[in-house]
Amino acid sequence: MAIQLVGKMVIGQSGGPTAVINQSLVGAILSARRQSNITGILGARHGIAGIMKEDFVDLSTQSQGQLELVANTPAAALGSVRLKPGRAECEKVFEVFRKNDVRFFFYIGGNDSAETAHIIAEMAKDANYDFCTVHIPKTIDNDLKVTDHCPGFASAARFVALAFMGDDRDNYALSGIKINVVMGRSAGFLTAASALARQAEGDGPHLIYLPERVFNVASFQQDVRDVMAKYGRCVIAVSEGITDKDGNPISTSGERDSHGNIQLSGSGALGDALAALVKEAFPGQKVRVRADTFGYLQRSFPTIISPIDAKEAREVGEYAVNHAATTGTPGSVSIRRLSSKPYASECFITPLSSVAKEATQMKDEYINAAGNDVTAAWMDYIRPLVGDLPVMGRL
Amino acid sequence: MAIQLVGKMVIGQSGGPTAVINQSLVGAILSARRQSNITGILGARHGIAGIMKEDFVDLSTQSQGQLELVANTPAAALGSVRLKPGRAECEKVFEVFRKNDVRFFFYIGGNDSAETAHIIAEMAKDANYDFCTVHIPKTIDNDLKVTDHCPGFASAARFVALAFMGDDRDNYALSGIKINVVMGRSAGFLTAASALARQAEGDGPHLIYLPERVFNVASFQQDVRDVMAKYGRCVIAVSEGITDKDGNPISTSGERDSHGNIQLSGSGALGDALAALVKEAFPGQKVRVRADTFGYLQRSFPTIISPIDAKEAREVGEYAVNHAATTGTPGSVSIRRLSSKPYASECFITPLSSVAKEATQMKDEYINAAGNDVTAAWMDYIRPLVGDLPVMGRL
Repeated sequence: MAIQLVGKMVIGQSGGPTAVINQSLVGAILSARRQSNITGILGARHGIAGIMKEDFVDLSTQSQGQLELVANTPAAALGSVRLKPGRAECEKVFEVFRKNDVRFFFYIGGNDSAETAHIIAEMAKDANYDFCTVHIPKTIDNDLKVTDHCPGFASAARFVALAFMGDDRDNYALSGIKINVVMGRSAGFLTAASALARQAEGDGPHLIYLPERVFNVASFQQDVRDVMAKYGRCVIAVSEGITDKDGNPISTSGERDSHGNIQLSGSGALGDALAALVKEAFPGQKVRVRADTFGYLQRSFPTIISPIDAKEAREVGEYAVNHAATTGTPGSVSIRRLSSKPYASECFITPLSSVAKEATQMKDEYINAAGNDVTAAWMDYIRPLVGDLPVMGRL
Repeated sequence: MAIQLVGKMVIGQSGGPTAVINQSLVGAILSARRQSNITGILGARHGIAGIMKEDFVDLSTQSQGQLELVANTPAAALGSVRLKPGRAECEKVFEVFRKNDVRFFFYIGGNDSAETAHIIAEMAKDANYDFCTVHIPKTIDNDLKVTDHCPGFASAARFVALAFMGDDRDNYALSGIKINVVMGRSAGFLTAASALARQAEGDGPHLIYLPERVFNVASFQQDVRDVMAKYGRCVIAVSEGITDKDGNPISTSGERDSHGNIQLSGSGALGDALAALVKEAFPGQKVRVRADTFGYLQRSFPTIISPIDAKEAREVGEYAVNHAATTGTPGSVSIRRLSSKPYASECFITPLSSVAKEATQMKDEYINAAGNDVTAAWMDYIRPLVGDLPVMGRL
């Protein structure tokens, strides 16, 4: 039997916020308050950046009411960080943990955060410092390995589905070609969620382009011409992460973030470039082409949260703390789908190394042969996650 | 006493859709079904474009359930049109009306639609054709004269307020400078609605730029530097319609619509141009600058509709038909605010000529002296219209 760890915990949030990342935080806090071997609950401001500066918030005193407000508020309440730490930063973090008798570390984030947690866990092991670190998953990109899906994804998917529903009715009312650029650097899950907007024959999105497939300009232009010939209008979902056959982005602002990734969000460059390509596909014709880039609203819009997402985000936070306090063993919390009809899921622990570093993409069976749409298997996967959607009325 | 008109009615929808324009349509249909002197209810597909082609839908047969679904669905269910008709088109419309014994015409739209209705009403008068046309207001721009506010505006304002609430929390979590471009060609009402997102000291938007004031690049850059010095982050609301001292747009895609207006929406050009100006304001510094353009989601997003907006949009439709059927006199339906606390309003009729053609802008008293924010008077005006907003939790 493992030694029961006794000591303080630190919890932090990392990477792009989601609409439910604070549910995980609150789930972890409330669970920690019930654990006799967790002697203090420290919230790190802006993830490991805050830990290095010992910038902590005491999370043992807030009222249940205040915490419930936080849980229902999008974006990381502790502050987040985009920092992929090197060995030196991780050593600094570990030093702070030792100094403060921190025995538990919970990091809410994506695969980079799991990697950070993994490095620190290995350091503790090497130093024979009794310590447990658990990664709590979140990402609207839905690109973590092992888990069926990631907390944060379903609420963003719900936003995308509703946005396409309304926008498709708008496009029906004033016909033309409409391009909507959706978040997702390397995985098309969120873009593929746009298909949930379809309720009747002819509804958009009529074309869906994912980063899992090479984006070919000529095929794209022909696809749009085909849809226009059939419906006289065309609504297009495009992932911000689409690339050409050499893996180069179709269009970007040229800026890079601290991870060395090219900036895709927070710019209208891709949408405008695609609009120009569409106009080029109809030479001599006056076609109405518009492009919207959904941007940060997808991960931060309040009040349209998926109930299942909120519930599961809370559960992964609770589960992480319960697991750490009772077993003292590190890992990453994952979600296993038990049933789609009715929907049911459970949490389980997977090794940090199985989630860290590498991300995943959409399965081949979710993408159609032409690479411009999703399949029925995808709809079966996503539909239970986003909650009930309104029915669009028509005359 | 006026002769009681007896005959068919035509109803159409025009201009940019809104989230509640179908409430007005359904209000008008249900009211028309109760009028003994309205002998047929014809819906025009795509406004006057459909009338000229006699492309009508019989609106006397749909079930109440179907109509309620339509009422709750964003964007014009009959289809809309962006066509500012000349004399020839109006004559064609009038000819179709005479041929089909149409005695009532209801046109749901903005000031251009009021102008169309006005021209046709004058034609009928000149021809001694007993006829009544009533304009039913809608526009997310809120720029119609006479009325206290326009149906469609409050729901778009609610979207903008919620978007800024979530985005401000996102910006708090990952600090930087965030520019959000909001719809509104000549009037800043919708951009000004972003101020509803503020709940605590330091909340964004920290700067608000409206088309009612000249946009000066140097002042803008200084404003952003000032906010960064104070809060270390900055969220900015900018109207798509901002112009320089000569009235030229700051940045556009260069395309013009059928009204001859420069295309502002459906492009990320302005946001990207402003982001570049912001970067220029911090020479030699690495600042995180992002720009989102909210785009068509503002007028079409389902499920976050303002309850008062939905109610009033229904009422203006009902009122228009009741008024026409009982008095036979033309006009435009307007809303009079009776009280802000508790909120109460009523409909009244104003002459078509008082609403047609020219639009209005925000009052001076709603804009601060520096021209980069709104005033308390503005908050008093808008707050009752958008419905309850969630409270953002914080640690």
